[in-house]
This record gives sequence, C-alpha cells and structure tokens, in this order.
Amino acid sequence: MQILKIVKIGGNIIDNDQALNSFLKQFSKLQGPKLLVHGGGKLATNLAQKMGVKVQIIDGRRVTDSDTLEIAVMVYAGKINKTIVAQLQANQCNAIGCSGADGNTIISEKRPIKPTNFGFVGDIVKVNTVVLELLISNNITPVFCAITHDEKGQLLNTNADTIASELAIAFAKTYQTELYYCFEKNGVLKNINDECSVIKNINTTNVHQLIQDKVIAEGMLPKIKNCMQAIQQNVNKVCIGKPEMLFRPDANFTSITK
Amino acid sequence: MQILKIVKIGGNIIDNDQALNSFLKQFSKLQGPKLLVHGGGKLATNLAQKMGVKVQIIDGRRVTDSDTLEIAVMVYAGKINKTIVAQLQANQCNAIGCSGADGNTIISEKRPIKPTNFGFVGDIVKVNTVVLELLISNNITPVFCAITHDEKGQLLNTNADTIASELAIAFAKTYQTELYYCFEKNGVLKNINDECSVIKNINTTNVHQLIQDKVIAEGMLPKIKNCMQAIQQNVNKVCIGKPEMLFRPDANFTSITK
Repeated sequence: MQILKIVKIGGNIIDNDQALNSFLKQFSKLQGPKLLVHGGGKLATNLAQKMGVKVQIIDGRRVTDSDTLEIAVMVYAGKINKTIVAQLQANQCNAIGCSGADGNTIISEKRPIKPTNFGFVGDIVKVNTVVLELLISNNITPVFCAITHDEKGQLLNTNADTIASELAIAFAKTYQTELYYCFEKNGVLKNINDECSVIKNINTTNVHQLIQDKVIAEGMLPKIKNCMQAIQQNVNKVCIGKPEMLFRPDANFTSITK
Repeated sequence: MQILKIVKIGGNIIDNDQALNSFLKQFSKLQGPKLLVHGGGKLATNLAQKMGVKVQIIDGRRVTDSDTLEIAVMVYAGKINKTIVAQLQANQCNAIGCSGADGNTIISEKRPIKPTNFGFVGDIVKVNTVVLELLISNNITPVFCAITHDEKGQLLNTNADTIASELAIAFAKTYQTELYYCFEKNGVLKNINDECSVIKNINTTNVHQLIQDKVIAEGMLPKIKNCMQAIQQNVNKVCIGKPEMLFRPDANFTSITK
C-alpha cells in the first residue's frame, strides 16, 4: 500500500503570507500522494467586520448564520483556497481546490438546532474517496477548505480538523494514511509556556490523565479527539506539531498512538 | 468522436436564484459530456459597495485593482461557483468547481499596462485539457469561474466568454465540441426591441455588414468575436440564445457558422 500524507494547516500559517508561502514551497516538494486541508484564519472575521456582519457567539462557539456562511464560502473556498492552489501550481505541484460539494466528496448534515442552534454548521456523515482517488492516482493534490454540503444544495461550515481526520479515516481503506496537524507549537506541551515540554506520545493509556490534569484543554480537546478517532480507525500515523515535523527528521512533535 | 457541450451562463441567470435553480435542474439532465462556465453577475459589485471598494472604470471597462481581484476571487470562485456545484450535486450531476489555477487548466498573462492599465486582468495563453479530460471521461462536470492564473502564483480576472471559447477550441482536438452562450435574449436580434427578430445565422460573409450596421455592437461585439474564433478553430457548433436552446428543439437562437 502506498503512503498518503494528509496535512492540515490552520490560521497561524494562513494569516501570514510569508509563512504560507514558505510552507507551500516545502509542501510542494513532499514526495508521494498528498492532500492538504486548510482552516480559515482571521480573514473571515476581518471581512465580516468590513461588511458589518456581527459575529454571534454561544458557549464560546461561533454561530454560522446565513451571512456568516456566505462569508465563510467566499473566504475559505474562494480567497484562501484559490490563493493556495495558485501558489502550489507556481511550485510545480498540480493542485485542485475542493469543498465537500466538489466531486460530492464530503457529505454532512446540518447540526440539530437543539440544544443550541449553531446555524449552518455541518457534521460529516460520509466521505466519498472515488473522485479524490482518481485525482491522487494522477499526481494531483486535492486542497480542501472547510466547507461541505448536504447533497440537497446546502453548503455547510465544517470544522477543518474534523475534515482532515474524516478524510484520513476514509482513505485508510486504500492507502497507508498519515495525518499531520500543523499548528503554532512544537506539539502538545506539558507546560503551555515551555516549547521544550513537548509530550512525545499521547495514547489511550495516558490521554484521560492529561485531560483530567487540564494539560489537554480548550481548543486542544477536540483536536485530540479527532486524532484519537483517526488512530483507532486504522490511520497509520497521527502527529501534531509545527510544519517542520513534515520536512525535518529531527523536529519535535507529538505523536498519537493507540 | 464524442460530443462535448460547453455552456456559458451569465449575470441574468446567476443573479436570479429561481432562474439559476431552474437552469441547473435542466442542465443536470443534459446527456453526455458537458462543462459549465459562469460569469459574475451583480454580486461582486454589491460586495464591493458593502466593503467600500470603489469601482474604477476606464473606457467603459472595469479596472481590476488588488481589492477588486480579491472580491472577484471570493465571489466568482467562492460564492457563485460553490453554490452552483452544490446545486448540481443536489440534481445528481457530479460537478467539480474550477478556476484556471485548479489542475493548471487555464494559464493567462497579466495584460500589459500600456496603453491602459486594467490591473489584474489575464489574457489566456494556454489551456491544458489533461486534467479536465480525466474528469469528463469519469462523468464529472467541470464548472469554471472567470478566474485564471499566470503559473507564478498570481490569480487573474478573465472574461468568462473568452474562457468558454478557449476551452471549446482546446477540446476540439479530442471532442466534437459544441459551444452555447446563454444570455437574456433569443439570440442576436436585428432589432434589439423585437425578440422575434433573431438572426438565424451569423457567418464570415454577413458578420462584417452586421457590425457596420451596428446590429452587432457594444457587449455583443466581443462575444461574436469569441464565437467566430471558436468556429474557425474547429469547434463544431456555436450558438447564442436563451438557455432554452439547450433543452427545447423548437427554441430560437443564433447559430454561428464559418
């Protein structure tokens, strides 16, 4: 089985032109089948402000009303996705930008409005790898934004970390799949202020203690949940760290294992 | 040789949710290989207004400064393209949205700044059909927005009519290609106020007289130029009219021939 690398990048890279440029240069050089998933960054918030669209927050989470969805589609599937694709092409990496609607690749359902109505947020129900396998086997790199659809014509805002893990799980049937979550730190840190305190390994044995001790907390909680689900559903390798973990053999990172 | 239908739709369909919905329902049912190209409509102008971006016009043509390009990418490649793709999926038409950067399909160069600097406008220099043929031969319908790239990382705003004709010309090597320009009238009209005055046929013999008589004028001039180029470069059929020409055998339209 061939190795497929699925790489997720977030706001810290997307919001910084130079960081994005440098990442994409290196990503282009990665050998073998690969797939990129990108989050949103601050651009959507900035555009909402310019357009006078108010950001509504419930329980610390953003509500996707119809105006916010429109902005998400424009920024994620338009601006960010096409900027990344054009830069990859400039680096001789033949990329195609995708939302979950393209090729009917990621089908989600609108989250129930009870107990909380988060609006046009989609929870993934199915990943179709047929079209993506066709692309990948022809040396084309799919680049996913965090927009999915419900097969009834509705676009939905979907968490980019979850898109990455669900893609990795779906591809685990046909590829040896590796999932890399790139973010601003060297990995999951014991002490959030000490970049040298990387936890080398998180697994089913130590994860509960780390959560109980609040080492894994806030935004890291759902990320680790995505990682654990991937590793338990036959994804071969799951890592969290700086993008360097992909390009430098001596880089630090957190590896998630069973 | 198989027939490939290339259909271009413009603002009159895109700006009207019901018209778009109804068009896409019928387009989904079209048998055989097909490809859709869409223009922009009023959405980009509306967004520019909301964002306080001024539209600059020189010689009756819009200048694409960097803010305008950003809006074009968000609206054309984001909002409109993904809305169309999601609706096609809802109608069981497996579509993939594309800019010219995706799959490195349409390469353009920034228009020279002299005599007039129109900004980030791209003139097409090459169409790569390899990836598109892969998609089409797998029953996938590419949906193109009017954004191309220069292979150096720069996205460029490109005329959607020209994208449609250049795609048709490029595909004429491998398919029997038919090019349909859908717009708000029954075809090219002798008398602009009389929908029954459709000119059935425009060809190299009568085109100059029609231009001289100002029957073909303003926005219709570049459209006819695109049509003539296509028909002279082995596109099998070129038609202008309402979308009905695709779906009803008794519909009126203008056909362009050699």
